[in-house]
Amino acid sequence: MSEPVLKHAVVLLSGGMDSTTTLAEAKAAGFTCHALTVEYGQRHTHELIASNRVAQVFSVKDHKTISLDLRLFGGSALTSDINVPKDRSENEIGHGIPVTYVPARNTIFLSLALAWAETIGAFDIFLGVNCLDYSGYPDCRPEFLRAFENMADLATAAGVEDRGKFRIHAPLLYLSKTDIVRRGLELGVDFSLTHTCYDPTPEGRSCGHCDACQLRLAAFHEVGMTDPIAYAT
Amino acid sequence: MSEPVLKHAVVLLSGGMDSTTTLAEAKAAGFTCHALTVEYGQRHTHELIASNRVAQVFSVKDHKTISLDLRLFGGSALTSDINVPKDRSENEIGHGIPVTYVPARNTIFLSLALAWAETIGAFDIFLGVNCLDYSGYPDCRPEFLRAFENMADLATAAGVEDRGKFRIHAPLLYLSKTDIVRRGLELGVDFSLTHTCYDPTPEGRSCGHCDACQLRLAAFHEVGMTDPIAYAT
Repeated sequence: MSEPVLKHAVVLLSGGMDSTTTLAEAKAAGFTCHALTVEYGQRHTHELIASNRVAQVFSVKDHKTISLDLRLFGGSALTSDINVPKDRSENEIGHGIPVTYVPARNTIFLSLALAWAETIGAFDIFLGVNCLDYSGYPDCRPEFLRAFENMADLATAAGVEDRGKFRIHAPLLYLSKTDIVRRGLELGVDFSLTHTCYDPTPEGRSCGHCDACQLRLAAFHEVGMTDPIAYAT
Repeated sequence: MSEPVLKHAVVLLSGGMDSTTTLAEAKAAGFTCHALTVEYGQRHTHELIASNRVAQVFSVKDHKTISLDLRLFGGSALTSDINVPKDRSENEIGHGIPVTYVPARNTIFLSLALAWAETIGAFDIFLGVNCLDYSGYPDCRPEFLRAFENMADLATAAGVEDRGKFRIHAPLLYLSKTDIVRRGLELGVDFSLTHTCYDPTPEGRSCGHCDACQLRLAAFHEVGMTDPIAYAT
């Protein structure tokens, strides 16, 4: 019997529920995982702490954190002084492009993942986007991901020399937040490792009121479980 | 008579001959220019010094330098310990993908320019690539630029809300290095401000032997001028 081909993948890892479940999917699919975290000037470092925890528990082949201060450009509640909205209704959360949208963020993240992938000879990149609960983010849609793949094949030596085709895997694309929690639990993800809140306390307790916290809490409620992380209120 | 519409553009500026001539083209076309320099872990800082000089002389509206250490990924003579080739023949220079290719570099640079463009409401991005003298770089080809534009319209709030279409301008795309020098001189570019060499001395004198120096020297020779910058040999 021949050995299975060892396939390498770059997995974008923020340390949140989505990217952690995505990493679990990549491992379950048999990929050797190289986790990439981008420190882009988020208001807090709890995401970075969570990504280190997750990378360690999942025994990834390699974990790199690259710094890139997107505050230089501003334009988002996550990278400037715009306030993170709190206690919005489900209808408000689902409507329009959120102030937490960071201009071209996923394009930048995928470009960095592409650079690393090409360097290590990988063609597979995993990204934990989903287009249901966050339908307002333009760079979370399938048509964007397909356009990025097409561009990546034209952008790289690996693509031009036809050594392979780049593929952006977004296994959570059509899952609701509740489905993501269910799928994560199936894959054995320990969600106590993850961080979600846009506006945590200095100690890292989640606010419970921003859009991200509300969606997370609703998802755990729906699967009938208590969210294992600590909340401020 | 109505005022002309003030159009803003982001111009990627390395401080080399090509990006400087591209900035001159953007200004000549009536754009208000926002220059973006990426400090990506080049072996030397003379490019950065040149980009500051050029931005100042051209009185750009704004000049930002963003740091992003691509040495983290390696894979290129410009960002790792691979030697920069010297004294290659014209045939060798034109053949294959050079070791100075940085994986996904232009994709990353354009993504950063896209983030800034979206933040300031611009749809025009200028990039000083050309596909003749450096035909070996995959991310200097027109098909890559078109694929990036297509992706950008799908990636951004500005694109999705149909406020405009992103355009990657590459005015030097079909020019030879000699044509670029001619065009730059027509536009009044002072090439003594620019830096080209891949492997300068610590004081910033150009080596005269790397591919970039050789192409530059040959171009000045062809237009019958002495290159105004200082060479080590």
